[in-house]
Amino acid sequence: MSKKISIAIDAMGGDNSPDKTIEGVKIFLNKHKSKNDFILNIFGKESLIKEKIKKYNISSNSIEIIDSKTVVSDEETPLKAVKNSKNTSMWNCIKHQLDGKSDISLSAGNTGVLLVISKMILKMMNEVNKPALAGLWPNKDGMNVVLDLGANIECNEQNLIDFAELGSALFKSLYPEKKPKVSLLNVGSEEIKGTEILKTASKRLRDLSSDENFIYNGYIEGNNIMSGESNIIVTDGFTGNIALKTAEGTAKFITKNLKKSLSLVSILFSFLSLKKFKDKLDPRKYNGAIFLGLNGPVVKSHGGIDSIGFYHSIDLCYKIVKGDLMTQIKRNLKHSKSV
Amino acid sequence: MSKKISIAIDAMGGDNSPDKTIEGVKIFLNKHKSKNDFILNIFGKESLIKEKIKKYNISSNSIEIIDSKTVVSDEETPLKAVKNSKNTSMWNCIKHQLDGKSDISLSAGNTGVLLVISKMILKMMNEVNKPALAGLWPNKDGMNVVLDLGANIECNEQNLIDFAELGSALFKSLYPEKKPKVSLLNVGSEEIKGTEILKTASKRLRDLSSDENFIYNGYIEGNNIMSGESNIIVTDGFTGNIALKTAEGTAKFITKNLKKSLSLVSILFSFLSLKKFKDKLDPRKYNGAIFLGLNGPVVKSHGGIDSIGFYHSIDLCYKIVKGDLMTQIKRNLKHSKSV
Repeated sequence: MSKKISIAIDAMGGDNSPDKTIEGVKIFLNKHKSKNDFILNIFGKESLIKEKIKKYNISSNSIEIIDSKTVVSDEETPLKAVKNSKNTSMWNCIKHQLDGKSDISLSAGNTGVLLVISKMILKMMNEVNKPALAGLWPNKDGMNVVLDLGANIECNEQNLIDFAELGSALFKSLYPEKKPKVSLLNVGSEEIKGTEILKTASKRLRDLSSDENFIYNGYIEGNNIMSGESNIIVTDGFTGNIALKTAEGTAKFITKNLKKSLSLVSILFSFLSLKKFKDKLDPRKYNGAIFLGLNGPVVKSHGGIDSIGFYHSIDLCYKIVKGDLMTQIKRNLKHSKSV
Repeated sequence: MSKKISIAIDAMGGDNSPDKTIEGVKIFLNKHKSKNDFILNIFGKESLIKEKIKKYNISSNSIEIIDSKTVVSDEETPLKAVKNSKNTSMWNCIKHQLDGKSDISLSAGNTGVLLVISKMILKMMNEVNKPALAGLWPNKDGMNVVLDLGANIECNEQNLIDFAELGSALFKSLYPEKKPKVSLLNVGSEEIKGTEILKTASKRLRDLSSDENFIYNGYIEGNNIMSGESNIIVTDGFTGNIALKTAEGTAKFITKNLKKSLSLVSILFSFLSLKKFKDKLDPRKYNGAIFLGLNGPVVKSHGGIDSIGFYHSIDLCYKIVKGDLMTQIKRNLKHSKSV
């Protein structure tokens, strides 16, 4: 029998935890009840976790509770929180992963603290200068991987090339049957557009473009992120963060106005199709940003998401390990350095 | 009697012109038929313009046709198009404005060419280093002014401060009863977030914040652009362009999915309210980007917009001149230099 997929879960981070995290675990266990290929290592105050496991009526051989007395505090500054983070549930997750007892870590706690702790414990890969925060973003035909979403405010051309390799590896681990198509986010599609950094990165990506690795599709503009023409959208962390949040704000604005517009009769008549519409755009489905570039993957769940969103994050962790992300990343980076 | 508002219209630029531009003129004349305070100077091939004026059954003392034999070509590179632009309908508009015969120019032609020609002929204001492209963007309570939308890929702190002053002046000329509230677009709302340029600009804007000029609201994140908390969103041209286009793409993606979801019966039942919803979000209503920082305002209509969108651009020109934008700008810049 092959090794089990082992996921370290910080049960204490985010709003309404550990209720939502443990309920998320329950949903995951239900959806995967026919499988025996994983183990969930749950980090948090043991008595509290046990209480919630009882509350949600969970009984499974696939979970293990690892007592962590303290929790990363939301009341401190990120700097102070990092300083006091040793032996918190978040810290213990990453340490467990470093020791080879988990393949991936998941937390809904403070993003900055998680990024710093992960980098401190797991360390950067030798081949990568800066880690990236990658997210899933729906497009016409399926899902995009967009990175960086905010780990690095300023990036040089080599960072962008690394992000293309890392993002393609993530995409291949999640959607092995699809081809990664990379684009650089820019203000126009012509070669002369954008900063010098983008122009240099674009030339280099054109050289790296290959059938095994990724196809480079050139520049993409903001209005085409969801067109499906490319599925790996590469940008610096400042632009990526603004783009993602602007899309979120726009979606919220439109759906709010729509709700006000639809009559009750109309909602009744369209109940099923509106449900399908809502399901497709449900942000809980693509909850989870992935830190790439460290010696092991770490997933950050949205702090304010509910148990269904947290379940989707656990599921994302499961898929990432099953798709053997780290092997994909090493293969991609080797290719990148050889061209 | 006070001087008439005089608008120079390039009738030849954009898709389906001069049909859409002249039909746009007709809609404007109908909406303003009780008024006698404006003159529309229409630039293009005289015979063709006269033919369209006949076609759309326009009869008005408030229009004047000024023959322009040539048109800025879409087939050339922008550089070549600028070189060959002398005496085109676009060129003649701006020249008419320089000569004091128009207060503002409007074109749906090539953005890059229009920006270069405008800068060449009208010249930059002494107090401003870089011109900005400002756009209107709906928010919860009304409209935002967002700038820069792509005139400057890279900006320093002084450019951002100028944009805040220019954008506030535009806002005051359009909505004299409302208070301009400025925010800098950033990846977080805390003071420590973002680039050094943003941090320096933020400090300076805090010093400039006043009741007469604009209130500085600090940083704003992408998801809050449409929240209404601020109405002047200041950013560099790279980020602004990506944010605007990402919002456009998201809106299109959602409404497309929504259309597929709603049943015919549901549409019939909600016809009026859905019409209201569509009306509110109709991009034709805020068609027109405004070049700010030159010795006179120039408006760029979207090239692909229809006659209704073009009408809204003419109306925007009318409001800008009526609101005395240039006086507002001079007052704001004087304030900015004095603090």
